[in-house]
Formats: sequence, C-alpha cells, structure tokens
Amino acid sequence: MSRKPMVRPGGRSARVQQSVHQAVRDLTSEVGRDALTVPLVAARAGVTPSTIYRRWGDLQELLSDVAVERLRPDAPPADHGDLASDLTAWAEEFLEEMSSPPGRAYIRDALLGDPDGTNAGQCSAYAAEQIDVILDRAAARGQRAPDVETVLDRVVAPMMYRILFRSGQLDARYARRLVTGLLGGQDS
Amino acid sequence: MSRKPMVRPGGRSARVQQSVHQAVRDLTSEVGRDALTVPLVAARAGVTPSTIYRRWGDLQELLSDVAVERLRPDAPPADHGDLASDLTAWAEEFLEEMSSPPGRAYIRDALLGDPDGTNAGQCSAYAAEQIDVILDRAAARGQRAPDVETVLDRVVAPMMYRILFRSGQLDARYARRLVTGLLGGQDS
Repeated sequence: MSRKPMVRPGGRSARVQQSVHQAVRDLTSEVGRDALTVPLVAARAGVTPSTIYRRWGDLQELLSDVAVERLRPDAPPADHGDLASDLTAWAEEFLEEMSSPPGRAYIRDALLGDPDGTNAGQCSAYAAEQIDVILDRAAARGQRAPDVETVLDRVVAPMMYRILFRSGQLDARYARRLVTGLLGGQDS
Repeated sequence: MSRKPMVRPGGRSARVQQSVHQAVRDLTSEVGRDALTVPLVAARAGVTPSTIYRRWGDLQELLSDVAVERLRPDAPPADHGDLASDLTAWAEEFLEEMSSPPGRAYIRDALLGDPDGTNAGQCSAYAAEQIDVILDRAAARGQRAPDVETVLDRVVAPMMYRILFRSGQLDARYARRLVTGLLGGQDS
C-alpha cells in the first residue's frame, strides 16, 4: 500500500509497527476482535490515533496487516525424504491451520482491509515460497515435480476456495486426495 | 442469516427487499460505492433506516446481499453440443465476469458482509448449479463426465483463488487450460 513508509528494521517505523501489531494481538485476546477501535489500539501501543490513521488508513487495513503477519510461515516445510510425503504433510498442515477459526478470521481480515490486493498477494506468496522449497528438494533428489503454479491450482486453490465459499470436506483426507490427484504416478 | 425474515414473493418483505436493493444499485452508479450510507439508501428506497438495520444488520451485510443477487446467473449455460465445449465456454465467461472490476467488487462485498458464510456459500451454489446443468447434458448424451465437486476443485477454485489472491494469468486461455487439464482424454 502506498500509505506505508519504508520500514527499516530497528528504526522508529519498525518499532511503531511492532508495538501496534502487538497491541492488536493482545487486545484481540483480551476484549475480542469486535471491540477493537483505533483509539483503543493506539492507547495500548503508546502512539497517537493519528499515527495509526496516517500509516494504515483505518482499522480494517491495520487488521489486514496483522493478519498477514500471522499467516507468515515461521519455518520451512519439514523434509520427509520425498516429494509426495513433503507435499502431503504441508497440505494437511496448511488446511488445518487455514480452516481453523483463527485461520479463517485471519484470511477474512487479510482480504477485507486490502483494497489493492497487496496483502492477499502476500498470503499467496507465502504458500508459493513453501511449495518452492518442497519442489527444489524434489529436484535435488532427481524427482520429477510439477511447477509451483500447478501446485497452487491443484492443491492450494481448492482448499482456499472451500474455506471461503463451500463448507464441508475439509479434513486431512481431502488434502491428501488433492496431492495424490496431482502427483498421480509422477512422483517416482 | 437468521436476521432475515422469510420472503414471500409479492409480499411486503419482498417489496422492501426489491426497493432497497434497487436503491443500492442506483446510488452505487450515481454517487459511488464508498459514499453509500444506510440513511442514504433508506431515503432513496422510501423506508426507514431502522428497517434496514433490523433486516440486514449493517451496510456491509446489505451490500453482501446485493452482491450475491448480482452474481446470480440469469440463464442456464449455453448448449454447444458436447461437454468440453460447454464447460470451456462456461469457464471463459465465468472468469471474464468474475475477474472484471464489478465482478471483483461483488465477490469482495459478498465475502465481507457475510460473517456466517451464507452468501459465500450461495455464490458457490450458483456455480455448482450451472455446472450441474452441463454435466447432466453430458450424461444425457452418453458422455463420460467428472462430478460437480471435481469441476469446482479443478476449474472454479483456481480461477477464484487467482482473482482473490494472485494476479496475472487471468485470460480465456487460462480458463481453457483448466478445462483441458481436467477433461484430458475423457470427454470423448
């Protein structure tokens, strides 16, 4: 978003971001998401409301930023020794996280306060980065693998579509079925 | 949504819904979506603001209802004589509509003012109904066809995922590629 200044790690801008994000997370668990207001978050973070309005625009855009931060993977996907196992384990975990009540709330927040699509794009970029790690490992092992866009279409998209638009069927078996359908006999 | 009363066609409730929806559509093109308020919509529709609050909760839920109504297909998919042609034509049109600026705005609205997922589910149900018509025709012709959930996973989900989370690649060729990837050699 054009409103956000460049953030130098360790600079004032980064400190403001960190304390405001922390205030949102703390207040969300203390008073609930629906009770959040910009003045409340500002008071907790020790900044003025106008600092928040200037930087984030409104509460929804701030919540979107916080959500994307929460959706950021904190570790590379586990290495299980082959493509099918790596992708299956990753897909099962992704589905479990994203379809949980907090995961659904973060996805909604990320989309809602994001008129230009930057944050939604970041969510997809996180998934693509994790898949890239898995595909690079497969290549290093000499395994044939689909490209990352195909994995997004065949594994990530159906899970996200059902989380947002179509309930039911959202268990680990569904995630496994998508991976098996994609890899078929090609993961040998 | 539990807030909405049963709507009898032709009854007062249906007339209120129709005039409020019409007011939203008219005002959106006259003053723009960001200038809409509940009092403004109420004045144009000839109802009190409290009628709107009681029935829809808030502006976002009203906009979500209007969006779903706009996303409702107004005709069954065209019959081109075989499964691959029917599904390709439908997917191309679906992608063109949904990825257009108004389509994207309706999808966002449908999702945002829809905490319980009813309206998002309705969007998916509309797509599933159209696909069902295509698959029933294929069956009547004796063509082998995938089931509707598979078509949602393989054709609809990737398009919607990219509209919401990942820009680029959204042309008719992409829609055709998804259908070809799904039907492979089985549409003979």
